[in-house]
Amino acid sequence: MRIIIYGMGAVGGVVAAALARSGQSVIGIARGAMAQAVAARGLRLRAPGLDAWVPVPVVCHPSEIDWRDDDLILLCMKSQDTQAALEDLRSAGVTRQALFCAQNGVANESAALRLFPNVHGVTVMMPALYLVPGEVAVFTEPKFGIFDLGRYPGGVDADDRRMATALEAAMIATNLLPDVMASKRGKLLLNLGNILKAALGHQAETGTLGQRVRAEAEAVFRAAGLDWQPPEETDAQRDALMRPVDSLPGVARVGGSTNQSLLRGAIRLETDYLNGEIALLGRLHGLDTPLNAGLCRVAAHLAVKRLRPGDMTLPEVEAMLAMDQTEPI
Amino acid sequence: MRIIIYGMGAVGGVVAAALARSGQSVIGIARGAMAQAVAARGLRLRAPGLDAWVPVPVVCHPSEIDWRDDDLILLCMKSQDTQAALEDLRSAGVTRQALFCAQNGVANESAALRLFPNVHGVTVMMPALYLVPGEVAVFTEPKFGIFDLGRYPGGVDADDRRMATALEAAMIATNLLPDVMASKRGKLLLNLGNILKAALGHQAETGTLGQRVRAEAEAVFRAAGLDWQPPEETDAQRDALMRPVDSLPGVARVGGSTNQSLLRGAIRLETDYLNGEIALLGRLHGLDTPLNAGLCRVAAHLAVKRLRPGDMTLPEVEAMLAMDQTEPI
Repeated sequence: MRIIIYGMGAVGGVVAAALARSGQSVIGIARGAMAQAVAARGLRLRAPGLDAWVPVPVVCHPSEIDWRDDDLILLCMKSQDTQAALEDLRSAGVTRQALFCAQNGVANESAALRLFPNVHGVTVMMPALYLVPGEVAVFTEPKFGIFDLGRYPGGVDADDRRMATALEAAMIATNLLPDVMASKRGKLLLNLGNILKAALGHQAETGTLGQRVRAEAEAVFRAAGLDWQPPEETDAQRDALMRPVDSLPGVARVGGSTNQSLLRGAIRLETDYLNGEIALLGRLHGLDTPLNAGLCRVAAHLAVKRLRPGDMTLPEVEAMLAMDQTEPI
Repeated sequence: MRIIIYGMGAVGGVVAAALARSGQSVIGIARGAMAQAVAARGLRLRAPGLDAWVPVPVVCHPSEIDWRDDDLILLCMKSQDTQAALEDLRSAGVTRQALFCAQNGVANESAALRLFPNVHGVTVMMPALYLVPGEVAVFTEPKFGIFDLGRYPGGVDADDRRMATALEAAMIATNLLPDVMASKRGKLLLNLGNILKAALGHQAETGTLGQRVRAEAEAVFRAAGLDWQPPEETDAQRDALMRPVDSLPGVARVGGSTNQSLLRGAIRLETDYLNGEIALLGRLHGLDTPLNAGLCRVAAHLAVKRLRPGDMTLPEVEAMLAMDQTEPI
């Protein structure tokens, strides 16, 4: 059994290194610079009390892999890159191998199910950081993270158990959940603040805005009849298994994944699949979502204007959210 | 009031020419060769008893348009190109202008609603053909086609009525429907055979396969609790307003839009949003859809192998549909 890690950013890099370090069979699929670095020197994994170089086989495209029926595939690209990745997997010969969607948001699973029959959701709790090509860090101990796993649209099956066993052996805790999407919606509530941290800087004060954004989302979930697992309910497990550290020797944290995307100059951010999911559900169910819809506009503004994390102030963001939505970004 | 036609293939080209010919304000957004040809010579519209060159203002990207609040936008690209187009519209300053999704399939409306608040569905009945850059044809009389229009997810509003009035003046008949998605699902049933025509050639015999593919889709709609408007119910209107012709002087028909994509060498086909919609719904609701899922594999096979319309035989297609889905394409 092999685990194929598609997308070796922060989370994909840490998972690939952790699995390989535990002696399991892994192949990474990465872009140019990351693939070259890992092929040349292996993957450097930094964590509390750990600084290890781990050999990880890596390719640049799914077509370079001789696919086997029992391969497990973990999708670790951002949501905005999922569709192209799915099409590349199919062209490369993937059929009913198990596909695990580890991306934030809740739109990837249905996109995968359109092309493939065997799809699973994964809620990723892992404060990971992509440092430079070939080097990643994770900021918790004693575990590298906690993943909730389950079949999509529901259930838990043998593939979930195989993946969970592999992750547990690699110091990643797991929960098998028959309704993993409720867990992913709970995580989504936490990710609604990512764009705020990107706009204001990851340590900036956000006043009451974060709470108001989340309240709007919870109202939309209720209107849509969608359950969610409040992230607070799993705090005790996180406290025990994922004690956070603020920095590692020579490595400072720079905030969440949207900050990292912006720092890399990405022109497409994940916000449309986070706050945008709330805006979509609100429009489908007749609820206004000025804050979450407005934060999508903030994200488009950051990307189009090529701004950096922290380039906006809280009053500027509040003003953009209060704007009549006929104003162009 | 202007109508912006985004995507000037067969349908977009005919609509742009028809609107412009009726004296209405139109801007087309087209790719390189089409945009150059239309800018240089106008758009040539062939139809029964008609061969006209029509001046149509054209740009290559939404950012070249000075958007106005009362612009109506008609999305005429294929479903697989919708996401990029939506992001380009937002970056260009579009906010709550009315967006009409004229694409086949039923996935575009929710993709649009994620980014924009004012979204409408359009069912397009129009046998149109893209001939060469700058030239399109439509094969019916006395009308160029019939469009069903409505707000998404439901209702009929003033923007629907504005669009309908413009289309009617351009020789395109319209119906305003409070549940336009039911009409689009009815059209989807007709489009399930597009990939068969592409694989076998547009005039090939398909035996009972077409009926079996449609029966599978209807069972899935029922399991999902989704209504659809059977296309047969509107046959009388079509018989009166859209009498088909097989050819125009010097112009032969080459089949539906999937054939046309394949002839142009497209490597991504619309099938994932037609037969793939049925496969997705089946997986969500616990029904096997071997025929529609298999036809997605046929489409991927045609595209990956760079085959031409008619390059497969019916026994070859049936064999691929009967295959265990673990076989790679």
